[in-house]
Amino acid sequence: MIKKSILAASVAIGISGLWGGAWADDAPDLEVISKIRDEGFNHSQVMKTLHHLTDRIGPRLTGSPAMTQANEWTRDQLTAWGLENARLEGFDFGPGWTWESVDVRMTAPRTDQLYALPISWYPGTDGPVTGEVVFAPMKSKADFEKYKGKLKGKIVLVDAVRPYKDPTELNAEDRRHANESILRYTEGELEDVSAYDVPEGAPGDDSWVSYKSWGYYLTDFLEAEAAAAIVRRSPRRNLLIDATGYQYLEGELPSIPAVRMASEHYDRAVRLLNEDLPVSLSLEVKARYHTDDMQSYSTLADIPGQGRRPELVMLGAHLDSWFMGDGAVDNGAGVAVTMEAVRILKAIGIKPKRTIRIGLWGGEEQGYYGSYQYVKNHLATRPAREDEKLKYMEPYAREFGMFPIAKKPEFDRFSAYFNLDNGSGKIRGVYAEGNAAAAAIFKTWLEPFHDLGADTVTMNDTGGTDHEVFDDIGLPGFQFIQDPLDYDSRLHHSTADTYDHAFEKDLKQAAVIMASFVYNAAMRDERFPREPEPREREEDLKKDEADE
Amino acid sequence: MIKKSILAASVAIGISGLWGGAWADDAPDLEVISKIRDEGFNHSQVMKTLHHLTDRIGPRLTGSPAMTQANEWTRDQLTAWGLENARLEGFDFGPGWTWESVDVRMTAPRTDQLYALPISWYPGTDGPVTGEVVFAPMKSKADFEKYKGKLKGKIVLVDAVRPYKDPTELNAEDRRHANESILRYTEGELEDVSAYDVPEGAPGDDSWVSYKSWGYYLTDFLEAEAAAAIVRRSPRRNLLIDATGYQYLEGELPSIPAVRMASEHYDRAVRLLNEDLPVSLSLEVKARYHTDDMQSYSTLADIPGQGRRPELVMLGAHLDSWFMGDGAVDNGAGVAVTMEAVRILKAIGIKPKRTIRIGLWGGEEQGYYGSYQYVKNHLATRPAREDEKLKYMEPYAREFGMFPIAKKPEFDRFSAYFNLDNGSGKIRGVYAEGNAAAAAIFKTWLEPFHDLGADTVTMNDTGGTDHEVFDDIGLPGFQFIQDPLDYDSRLHHSTADTYDHAFEKDLKQAAVIMASFVYNAAMRDERFPREPEPREREEDLKKDEADE
Repeated sequence: MIKKSILAASVAIGISGLWGGAWADDAPDLEVISKIRDEGFNHSQVMKTLHHLTDRIGPRLTGSPAMTQANEWTRDQLTAWGLENARLEGFDFGPGWTWESVDVRMTAPRTDQLYALPISWYPGTDGPVTGEVVFAPMKSKADFEKYKGKLKGKIVLVDAVRPYKDPTELNAEDRRHANESILRYTEGELEDVSAYDVPEGAPGDDSWVSYKSWGYYLTDFLEAEAAAAIVRRSPRRNLLIDATGYQYLEGELPSIPAVRMASEHYDRAVRLLNEDLPVSLSLEVKARYHTDDMQSYSTLADIPGQGRRPELVMLGAHLDSWFMGDGAVDNGAGVAVTMEAVRILKAIGIKPKRTIRIGLWGGEEQGYYGSYQYVKNHLATRPAREDEKLKYMEPYAREFGMFPIAKKPEFDRFSAYFNLDNGSGKIRGVYAEGNAAAAAIFKTWLEPFHDLGADTVTMNDTGGTDHEVFDDIGLPGFQFIQDPLDYDSRLHHSTADTYDHAFEKDLKQAAVIMASFVYNAAMRDERFPREPEPREREEDLKKDEADE
Repeated sequence: MIKKSILAASVAIGISGLWGGAWADDAPDLEVISKIRDEGFNHSQVMKTLHHLTDRIGPRLTGSPAMTQANEWTRDQLTAWGLENARLEGFDFGPGWTWESVDVRMTAPRTDQLYALPISWYPGTDGPVTGEVVFAPMKSKADFEKYKGKLKGKIVLVDAVRPYKDPTELNAEDRRHANESILRYTEGELEDVSAYDVPEGAPGDDSWVSYKSWGYYLTDFLEAEAAAAIVRRSPRRNLLIDATGYQYLEGELPSIPAVRMASEHYDRAVRLLNEDLPVSLSLEVKARYHTDDMQSYSTLADIPGQGRRPELVMLGAHLDSWFMGDGAVDNGAGVAVTMEAVRILKAIGIKPKRTIRIGLWGGEEQGYYGSYQYVKNHLATRPAREDEKLKYMEPYAREFGMFPIAKKPEFDRFSAYFNLDNGSGKIRGVYAEGNAAAAAIFKTWLEPFHDLGADTVTMNDTGGTDHEVFDDIGLPGFQFIQDPLDYDSRLHHSTADTYDHAFEKDLKQAAVIMASFVYNAAMRDERFPREPEPREREEDLKKDEADE
């Protein structure tokens, strides 16, 4: 008992020395931390949860029957653990898509069974499609002219080849990706993550919108040319396949099949074609659309707070995945950890001041559908852009950066959101998203977890996942810093994203820290401090004028 | 001109200082080295050769039509480059085997298309084989009792599961393998390779014989039990498959199909079975035997030496491969480099004192068939063991370590053999195989290649490839030290053994050094120094007596 209060005092002193003392009362309740650690380390169910999501249910593409199964299973499991009001919240999505089989073979100049996967939302074939292969790398609409009239009945390789570089000759950052190693952050690397990167120029970059549109333009062109099939090159090496596809609306679905081929097999075909050797492929895909329900769903559940209308602390992760592999580290791991965090809190019997709500989002991979719908239902709405380029785009893309933000009543009761979606690596710290008060609080909250390797707080932003929908409207939304392992270099959106690639120790550690952050946020005296409200940037206003 | 002779003199002095001067006259002719470097670096054909072997011809399993094609193409290519007497030398091998397609699917508790390859020399199926899966890991004949009567009609998973360990928690050597990185030797690691490892106890270990026999016992057992199919676990991870199989003689061919499954998919099936969930598979394999020619072949060709019966310097690499991938780094790379070495020597117009002979061996992967047959045809023979355990074994296994060695006339004219078969990494040095005179000579020969990273000579042995058949009978046979890259950790015998994984700079460097070593050996005044003649070890004699 004495030791504990000495430690608590010294933590508070340490922090007040560093941060000026304003958040000294955020020192966590170490008795509760001990309970969380004991439950999370000695009575964990995190691997059992991950096993069910990945081995049993498998990949959970938004709109697919497996996603529905995952929605229902998580809802029932959260209820079984004692959470309340476990429910599904729908959002408009469009047709679902699943594949059953794929068979791609080189038939000339020699035969070989190739590694390829169908690309999502492209149709299956009616028996095998065979044809001569044309290498027609296209990067912009200008390239269409080059191949017009030459692709009828052809199987078209549409991506350029990028030769493998010797990674021992690359710089450290590129080498990390090329080497596909399992890596943990060094102290030096964590210092780099900590150092704030002052923004330059306008962040209103819309190249990602054009990038997403490119796939639609290319498909339109190849359909008009009556190509037999599209072959894209997987950006991964060592036969791993990333076959992410574009979501299509009903009535707009593509009419020719498309596969993504392992880079080794793709590049070999190109080398043979470069010798003027005819290359033929045979390609058969069984795939189908699901149009019985054009909505898809997120799973939500609560540990209710005290009082009539308590404030809200949220945690979450996206439940949907791509269909390569079993969606284990993207993001079965995040789901298993956040579910384990609320299981721990229920198991140790906490009575939170604020309501704790878990959100297991659908449609993250296609553009934050589930979490953004949650924001629109409960927190705030913004106007939509009218833009032809955005016709296939998700609501988030159409409304991103638009003003005014119309707040709903729950906006003021919202405290903070914590997200996990960077693979299965343990937590090394947290991104404070430019919120200096949050950074000070997180420093304090991480003190009891330095022995688990978690001690870094950075003022930097990080993007690419569901906390952004909260951050964008000025609400505190955070994502953790996780050990990279081989998430970016190998597993992310690849066929190897399976259960085996998550390490138990990492997930247990993350669940304990997640539970503790959520508990601290639910119990602190004040609502979590906010960043300045977002407002239109001068650069964006000028740009809008110029566009008109 | 002056610079060159100063360098030559200083090399000679440097070496005589180190090694006592006896081999000071081995200082290489640096004018010739310059020509070799120029031809090898600026007019290389090594990647073109590798491309033809891998992309065009593809995998070259011994006994397969592609292997014959490779024999014929290398013979014709060597002839085109001006080598003489290019020819094939046959050896008895047995039926060849090729596969055309494989389709393995999980059908319960959910459906998924799995990554698997047929195992060589096992039969195809007559349509899909479907069945319930049983996990029956068997490691010794004693395990058969456990499963007797329980496997009829079942698809049997016969290998134990080994969970993935977090490689950041492993020791350096294990981490190297687990991380699957592309690695180059550090100076410290090269020092470790240099330090001589004094042998302990009797090296007459025959565990490898029992290991090889195990596959035959297991297949016999599962055939007797009328299992529907055998499923083995690939030892690789990240969906790479090693599907090496056992060679079978005619009349002994297995009657049930067997596949090797990616460890991720294998382990998932085991996890589901461990929950008492029935797992079913469907499995279809198209494969065939080739019995039109029970011989297979090595390719040989010469650059003739001067005089009536000149001595012989050899270089070589095995031309055969497994059927996973295209046999690029095992050992298309070695073949391309040795072929490039003789091409360089012909291109610069050397007139060697000794005959230079290239041997591109068949049947290495099944046990040095081609190179050992060469030894028996030309150099020496030894008696064969009579041992039931060895009934399926290759001649090398049956005769290994047997005495007396009956020398043939060419034995005395044989100078040295240089082999390359450790992936596509550049040469960092050479194994002197306990031959101190060789070590001194190699130090001298490597002097002009320190700028290419090749400067290590170790007295240690290395095994596992064709130089052993020469070394075993007391003739100088050597293998180079090569940068590990990802050969052991990822590519060796795996589906990713394709052209893209070899780096041009490495192969060019190796070809230049190989050409230079062969040239030096062909031109030196004396025949290459030999180790003491092998004789039966006292331990082996005692063991033989005890066995009787």
